[in-house]
Amino acid sequence: MDAISVIRIKRDRGELTPEQIDWVIDAYTRGEVADEQMSALAMAILLNGMNRAEIARWTAAMIASGERMDFSSLSRPTADKHSTGGVGDKITLPLAPLVAACGAAVPQLSGRGLGHTGGTLDKLESIPGWRALLSNDEMLDVLDTTGAVICAAGDGLAPADKKLYALRDVTGTVEAIPLIASSIMSKKIAEGTGSLVLDVKVGSGAFMKTVEDARELASTMVGLGTDHGVKTVALLTDMATPLGLTAGNALEVRESVEVLAGGGPADVVELTLALAREMLDAAGIKDADPAKALADGSAMDVWRRMIAAQGGDPDAALPVAREQHVVTAPRSGVLTRLDAYGIGVAAWRLGAGRARKEDPVQAGAGIELHAKPGDTVAAGAPLLTLHTDTPEKFDYALKSLDGAYDIAPAGTAYEATPVVLERIA
Amino acid sequence: MDAISVIRIKRDRGELTPEQIDWVIDAYTRGEVADEQMSALAMAILLNGMNRAEIARWTAAMIASGERMDFSSLSRPTADKHSTGGVGDKITLPLAPLVAACGAAVPQLSGRGLGHTGGTLDKLESIPGWRALLSNDEMLDVLDTTGAVICAAGDGLAPADKKLYALRDVTGTVEAIPLIASSIMSKKIAEGTGSLVLDVKVGSGAFMKTVEDARELASTMVGLGTDHGVKTVALLTDMATPLGLTAGNALEVRESVEVLAGGGPADVVELTLALAREMLDAAGIKDADPAKALADGSAMDVWRRMIAAQGGDPDAALPVAREQHVVTAPRSGVLTRLDAYGIGVAAWRLGAGRARKEDPVQAGAGIELHAKPGDTVAAGAPLLTLHTDTPEKFDYALKSLDGAYDIAPAGTAYEATPVVLERIA
Repeated sequence: MDAISVIRIKRDRGELTPEQIDWVIDAYTRGEVADEQMSALAMAILLNGMNRAEIARWTAAMIASGERMDFSSLSRPTADKHSTGGVGDKITLPLAPLVAACGAAVPQLSGRGLGHTGGTLDKLESIPGWRALLSNDEMLDVLDTTGAVICAAGDGLAPADKKLYALRDVTGTVEAIPLIASSIMSKKIAEGTGSLVLDVKVGSGAFMKTVEDARELASTMVGLGTDHGVKTVALLTDMATPLGLTAGNALEVRESVEVLAGGGPADVVELTLALAREMLDAAGIKDADPAKALADGSAMDVWRRMIAAQGGDPDAALPVAREQHVVTAPRSGVLTRLDAYGIGVAAWRLGAGRARKEDPVQAGAGIELHAKPGDTVAAGAPLLTLHTDTPEKFDYALKSLDGAYDIAPAGTAYEATPVVLERIA
Repeated sequence: MDAISVIRIKRDRGELTPEQIDWVIDAYTRGEVADEQMSALAMAILLNGMNRAEIARWTAAMIASGERMDFSSLSRPTADKHSTGGVGDKITLPLAPLVAACGAAVPQLSGRGLGHTGGTLDKLESIPGWRALLSNDEMLDVLDTTGAVICAAGDGLAPADKKLYALRDVTGTVEAIPLIASSIMSKKIAEGTGSLVLDVKVGSGAFMKTVEDARELASTMVGLGTDHGVKTVALLTDMATPLGLTAGNALEVRESVEVLAGGGPADVVELTLALAREMLDAAGIKDADPAKALADGSAMDVWRRMIAAQGGDPDAALPVAREQHVVTAPRSGVLTRLDAYGIGVAAWRLGAGRARKEDPVQAGAGIELHAKPGDTVAAGAPLLTLHTDTPEKFDYALKSLDGAYDIAPAGTAYEATPVVLERIA
């Protein structure tokens, strides 16, 4: 077995055998297959694809490269959720305590943001004292005592994926559906959850720009989960416009707490409840009512205990950015479009995101939305408020808002896009 | 400018700008673009192609990465030839002194063999005392005094190509027509020849298996040469069966000397004369008769002086392998096929070629052919003689001859393939 033969097969549109896939993943993890060989193979996979059997084996080989966790000691069924990432996507924050309040154990091994999409850990780190990094024992303890945990994934899960992801990031080979699907699913399967709900975002603010691509990614991941005995369901959800009324770290925590308090923007509540119902159903919990758990404060109770268990103070004031800039509506009418990508890039430029893995983020930076598509706006009224500690970035952030919204004459009909576009199981 | 953006453009079937090409070649040569980024780009180029403008700029950028040689001090016009490589392709050996005998200066910066195709320098090194490595001054001196020189290319020509070729060799990205064409032509243009004849091989023993691919490669290279002011012509020539009656180092030198003595196999003589006429025509030499220069011994005179000028003894006995094994015809009839690839791999396994750049070759190893396609053979008569110093390799070599020839019943019509298939100018 040698790297060049394996690369040539995929380059020439052939199918890799299970032995070839096992060998190339293992040899790459050990350093026998060089980075320049794996990147050529990744480009060939991106351009020529892999079939379902190849993707399944590729995923299994990445799982086999590291340790597997085991939640079988828990008394409750586990339910996990993964989002492919979007702008204003704070759903994990209210969702994990909500589903825990309804009887499931919710382990959320999360990541940090890179580029224009935010990261769950960055958001939670705006809460004074909160720690993302837990040992496996600490993680199981928080999960066992509060019902939910949101923390950083350890280095032991799918190290082949960790190495391959870093390589893809610098070689223009991120956007390959077989590689995205196997990357996500290898970590989720190695983590040992019993059920998994995938939130596959579609639209300008998402990786997948079209419903067709999102559907292919979702089907691939559902197939992989099912093949590995994880009950897996995917929802395709809209990411043409940001979720809720905030994009930024502390801003999104504040909005999440509003949802847990029984309020919050309608789209965030709708998606949180839709995902909660899918997670409970996948975990086999039949008689729970997540809407009630939001209304009666039981989800908020889990949130407060979960934050406190990781050193955070749920009552502490959240950081606020030093400077604000208000963008007003240039004319009166109906807001017919507010582009997720433009808002995401602006929030990132204001300091909510990072350009390189090692950069810090600003807790208070981001954007507040004062209107959503379908709303009526008045000329001169606030449309967006930009928040940052580095006001010299306002002009740079404002550039990405050029052409990011449309205002049509008053009375123009507006057809709302549903939050949930499709369900794939 | 950054590597990921450049990779993405080619990945998404876009056209690279001149600035992007200049930058990526220069940054790769300097080590700013990493091997894993260049290999992903090479795979994207292999699968998505480059247009003529991109290939021209890519070639120019590789030329600009190193020094350029200058033959303008010579009193004669320069004529160079390059073969894309085949089995039994010893043509450079009789051709260079022949064209020199007709009045041109013939600088042949040659390479060593890798894989199943032999290398010109390996062949000449079977002559006792002969040296491949000359300084630039020595090279010009041999060229000036004898009219021809065959030696190793220096490190200063197109270093970007040298680095990229080594990378392509280990990443399954050799077989990309834009990259093959720019690799060959960047070295030939940097070398400073005034005219160039390309021998583009087609068939099982060649890189290009089909006439269509060979034609595309030839047209691309002719275009590149012409754009850089080098008068360039290409012949597509047959490599379905080996050239001549020998494949191996000393064996091919012996056959080349036969041609220079006015004898030798008909196909070798025909191709040598066809290439010589093209080279003389490209160099603007009108009144020479290469057939006469073979017959009257003037080509042989140049050969003897050229070999002697590089330390070789043209009268020394050539090395002979320690062991021989004869393959006989299993039945009587007409030999209708003798596969170049099978013969090439067998000769390589016998020790005539190398698996890795640093391996030595056996001077005496190789294969003698006792019949060529179209010849009548008798059951039990010798078909091939295998030569090696390592007789334990006979079985391994014989395996690659399984199915490498067909013998049809006596009287079967056989239509000979012409040696020269097409001319592209």
